Amino acid sequence: MVSLKGAEVSAKIQTEVERQLEELGGYVPTLAIVRVGEKPDDLSYERGALSRMKKYGLGAVSYAYPQDISMEEFREEFRRINEDEEVDGILLLKPLPPQLDEKEIERMIDPVKDLDGISPENIARVFSGDETGFAPCTAEAVVRILKGYGVSMEGKRAVIVGRSPVVGRPLAMLFLKEHATVTVCHTRTRELERVCREAEILVAAAGNPRMIGADHVREGAVAVDVGINVDENGKLCGDMDFEAVAGKASMVTPVPGGVGAVTTSVLAEHLVRAAAMRRA
Amino acid sequence: MVSLKGAEVSAKIQTEVERQLEELGGYVPTLAIVRVGEKPDDLSYERGALSRMKKYGLGAVSYAYPQDISMEEFREEFRRINEDEEVDGILLLKPLPPQLDEKEIERMIDPVKDLDGISPENIARVFSGDETGFAPCTAEAVVRILKGYGVSMEGKRAVIVGRSPVVGRPLAMLFLKEHATVTVCHTRTRELERVCREAEILVAAAGNPRMIGADHVREGAVAVDVGINVDENGKLCGDMDFEAVAGKASMVTPVPGGVGAVTTSVLAEHLVRAAAMRRA
Repeated sequence: MVSLKGAEVSAKIQTEVERQLEELGGYVPTLAIVRVGEKPDDLSYERGALSRMKKYGLGAVSYAYPQDISMEEFREEFRRINEDEEVDGILLLKPLPPQLDEKEIERMIDPVKDLDGISPENIARVFSGDETGFAPCTAEAVVRILKGYGVSMEGKRAVIVGRSPVVGRPLAMLFLKEHATVTVCHTRTRELERVCREAEILVAAAGNPRMIGADHVREGAVAVDVGINVDENGKLCGDMDFEAVAGKASMVTPVPGGVGAVTTSVLAEHLVRAAAMRRA
Repeated sequence: MVSLKGAEVSAKIQTEVERQLEELGGYVPTLAIVRVGEKPDDLSYERGALSRMKKYGLGAVSYAYPQDISMEEFREEFRRINEDEEVDGILLLKPLPPQLDEKEIERMIDPVKDLDGISPENIARVFSGDETGFAPCTAEAVVRILKGYGVSMEGKRAVIVGRSPVVGRPLAMLFLKEHATVTVCHTRTRELERVCREAEILVAAAGNPRMIGADHVREGAVAVDVGINVDENGKLCGDMDFEAVAGKASMVTPVPGGVGAVTTSVLAEHLVRAAAMRRA
């Protein structure tokens, strides 16, 4: 059983980012991270993104707003960041608190700066298989980790557990682009174990701690765990029971250290691409 | 074996359209059909749409342009239609000839008038399961025909053959919204027959005459044929071999008279909805 290490894939992405940075002739792209409130998940992702950008020689600025900011104020702040010539890309930490109209912000964000693919324009491009669009970083990280380990998706049965607009659905589109036969499962799926056992590539993106066990895994399958959960003992865990899955799969991503370790590298790559597009 | 007749579903939609029309208090919504060139498929669809609108008491105008119209001219013409206060909804017959930038028109079309869901805004809404968006009429017609015959999709295995941005992909999203477990197959799918036999609901949308036969069908499955092809004898046929499929399926849509007969009814319904949105 091979453990699919995010760090190794990230190292390859770093090399690519550095090459693309050179083409920018000394220009240092800047990421704006926009956060409302102080959710631990957001703070943790923000820290990871900031340190990744620093490591890759990229700029990053955090914009943090109080949990109770009004839509009027937030719209104005977001507009300023969106129009700021110094900002090459934006990462909006979601979900936003209920008083803020997330849909309006998604429609407002400049598609060229929309690194995590939340704008209609980028969603439509990913949907149509148009590579000029930005896909959500986590969904793209899954494809990158597979490619990084030489796992071809063409003609393979790929089963995704989870139908969220942030991971499951865009990943289905990315897998179709890679010519996989794609199945999307969710809470209403009957005989989930049986459906999952059809998978040559099984992806768990359900946000449900250790829900995927040995009975869900076909012998020799490649298992990718997108889940980041905290279990009853306060320990970080994925949507897969790693030990159980590792007993049957040929390759498994650990949590932490798997998909999560690639996501911010994809973000960095998107940032450099966004800067190149804006300066073209 | 039940033959799923589009006309019966269309009749139900007509009743609903007439009810919604009444709410508009005498206002007659107008559809603009935009066609470039004289492709037989386009002409045939246009005739069908015109007669459907007439039958439902709705207005319709055809705008036809020569095959060699320049992008500059077409952009100007399209802009005029798009901004015309008398036009409530637009149907653009695609694909456009190569000198025209289809993507630009898709981005230009007012999402509120975009009855066939080609704008990024509507694609993004369908992708996210947001019902305020317009889905492509053919994809929605599949769901309507199933609902019209009381076929629940919840928890069912739905297999779609074809991954086009016009039918396969949006239908996958609509099926997810109906809580089906969705699989999308295509030309690179291995063991297509076996995958198709997993389907409780099998949809063919590949544009390949009679490619789906008895070996693709699970006993008792519901089979929906989106294909409209002309065979070597000049006869209209679907992507399914009707006789072969009918021998195993519990329900099958005929071609013609199945999905195609519902598509323009869905278009009519979208038109009335568009008019209601614009006048709200």
